[in-house]
Amino acid sequence: MRVQSVEFFYAREPVVTLDADGSQDALIVRITAGSFVGWGECEASPLTSIAAFVTPRSHGVCQPVSASVLGMPVDSAEDIREIQRLVRRNSMDLLQAAHVLSGVDMALWDLLGKARGVPVWSLLGYTENLPKTPYASVLFGASPEETRERGRAMRERGFRAVKFGWGGFGEGALDADVAQVQAARSGVGEDCELFVDAGQAWGSDVEAARRVLPALADNRVSWLEEPFEAGALAAYAKLGELSGAVGIAGGEAAHDVQMAYNLMRFGKVTFIQIDAGRVGGIGPGTEVAAYAAAHGVAYINHTFTSQLALSASLQPFAGLPGSTICEFPALGSSLAHDMTVDRIEVDTDGLVRAPDRPGLGVDIDLDAISDRLVDVEMVVNGETIYRSTSP
Amino acid sequence: MRVQSVEFFYAREPVVTLDADGSQDALIVRITAGSFVGWGECEASPLTSIAAFVTPRSHGVCQPVSASVLGMPVDSAEDIREIQRLVRRNSMDLLQAAHVLSGVDMALWDLLGKARGVPVWSLLGYTENLPKTPYASVLFGASPEETRERGRAMRERGFRAVKFGWGGFGEGALDADVAQVQAARSGVGEDCELFVDAGQAWGSDVEAARRVLPALADNRVSWLEEPFEAGALAAYAKLGELSGAVGIAGGEAAHDVQMAYNLMRFGKVTFIQIDAGRVGGIGPGTEVAAYAAAHGVAYINHTFTSQLALSASLQPFAGLPGSTICEFPALGSSLAHDMTVDRIEVDTDGLVRAPDRPGLGVDIDLDAISDRLVDVEMVVNGETIYRSTSP
Repeated sequence: MRVQSVEFFYAREPVVTLDADGSQDALIVRITAGSFVGWGECEASPLTSIAAFVTPRSHGVCQPVSASVLGMPVDSAEDIREIQRLVRRNSMDLLQAAHVLSGVDMALWDLLGKARGVPVWSLLGYTENLPKTPYASVLFGASPEETRERGRAMRERGFRAVKFGWGGFGEGALDADVAQVQAARSGVGEDCELFVDAGQAWGSDVEAARRVLPALADNRVSWLEEPFEAGALAAYAKLGELSGAVGIAGGEAAHDVQMAYNLMRFGKVTFIQIDAGRVGGIGPGTEVAAYAAAHGVAYINHTFTSQLALSASLQPFAGLPGSTICEFPALGSSLAHDMTVDRIEVDTDGLVRAPDRPGLGVDIDLDAISDRLVDVEMVVNGETIYRSTSP
Repeated sequence: MRVQSVEFFYAREPVVTLDADGSQDALIVRITAGSFVGWGECEASPLTSIAAFVTPRSHGVCQPVSASVLGMPVDSAEDIREIQRLVRRNSMDLLQAAHVLSGVDMALWDLLGKARGVPVWSLLGYTENLPKTPYASVLFGASPEETRERGRAMRERGFRAVKFGWGGFGEGALDADVAQVQAARSGVGEDCELFVDAGQAWGSDVEAARRVLPALADNRVSWLEEPFEAGALAAYAKLGELSGAVGIAGGEAAHDVQMAYNLMRFGKVTFIQIDAGRVGGIGPGTEVAAYAAAHGVAYINHTFTSQLALSASLQPFAGLPGSTICEFPALGSSLAHDMTVDRIEVDTDGLVRAPDRPGLGVDIDLDAISDRLVDVEMVVNGETIYRSTSP
């Protein structure tokens, strides 16, 4: 079978705020081939990503992503890897390509899994679908009190690990950061694993970042996430030498496998966090997971949006015994909540598993998308090169 | 004065082929502030870059680039650096942002230089505008004979250094690559510096790349450029250990300063090649040039398109005595040739200088752009969020 159509559905909340909440909109991808349908989701700017798919060609290695996808065979895992290779080559100079490829790759794996009647993790070569301990991923509250309440609420929902991030952390006075970390620990209690996400607050400034380390150690924070901008490898490595028991995590911004390898090899992170909606999809995610396993680094998904994104991001390390925790979006938008019929729930044993159903195992709620659909049209020299369709 | 308007002009040749010739289209940026106008050029997919500028917001760090540019003060170099910082922060998750920012940053420097009546290199802190030895940058011919002729033609135009690249180099049999390198040397003669650009042909495969090294050494090729994909730092470093007198060059794909720093620090390249139309503009280019100078790496512009792009890419190292050569686009499209009124010619001493005029010192030929203008309209939920204007 060959890729017959690639459709994009750009959905969003009625109001999109300046919060660092990536679940306020979504770019959902539907691919058809033969009699099968696959779904994916780009963790990316929707309009820009659509443009990257349909744009006119600029030259041989700045082609639209569509040129390497439409009409291509998709009968095997190798076929999907070949599409991946072609997009990387033919769209080398199109920066946004990796982000739109991510959703396309997911949809292709979903489709192939459905065609074969097996879960994606099985197509990836895993023989087991190992449960992971989920950590609730939430933003810091506007005040330490709100952070404490949020931590308490997550414990009440049964989470044994919670991550707090953003909300101005690292951007103001050290005292304010310390108060937030203390509130987080106080809220989740003593017997809960705790992580902190700095959202690249310190650029590449190791001295600024190290000032928060004592408070993190005092409050037994297991890792400090994204202290620096994505490529600041030397700063990552230096902070890692200073951070003692506090691990250093990063990787969500990786838009290819090399960026992730470099963060492990040269940045010396102890936790590598990959968003399948940005790194190029499930295929590249799986390559990074293999590299991490071979180098003693814990692979973790980065997921802050939907259950479709969660399933896709769990696949690359579903069968890896050394990676035992997963990010679980716990406070997303109504869009993120409603857009799938199925939900990946925390099981009674407190653990989370990738679906054991064919493909990604997450059905899409077409009405939920339709209700929030953003209509897009792009016209070039009088010709409509893109017009959004209804799901 | 504040940024009043940012306009984009997407121009292209009547036919855009699959050649690796990036001059077949152009995305030109015009910024107005106060009574001044500045021009820049993105080395990027035009439609995708426009979308990145105007797209609706996705969340706090996935904002359109426009949000950090329009209305901002632009009275000093520090103001431009602040816009740079804001775009990087507010559009952190918008991958294409760096490419559109590049043209915007150029236009801001051009505008500020015109307002002050000084060249951009002076605004950057350089006290001298040092001449550079230009190398003609051309593609390999379709056959060794064509390559030889092209080399001969460049010598007849007076170039003392020539670079050949792409045209399938590294993608077929080793014999074919060797024949191309021999033809290149034969064409340019014995007393000409010669470079070879592999266009990422070998992915991250060091063994594949090393097979061509003897032919490069035999033909006294001074550097092998982009043997690997942009982020393959470990492969770059490894090949550098094996390449003897053949230097390793790379960096054109860097879309932020960290990528360039990493290629020097961890990839151990001996030549760092920065395209101001991709790295984020002239400001980031200058930061990379300073890092290169401090670490004994030769900084070179990457430019394959217009004279506007050439001027912009010369500014970051105009005053650096250690960087003595520059890339000079020698066989571009008619668009690249016609779009500027001014041309940066090779002087009678065989050297090239950044213009000594205010700003970038390159006036735009509005008719040449108008003749090739691509009309673009983007509509979101019935509202036209972008419609191209005439220059």
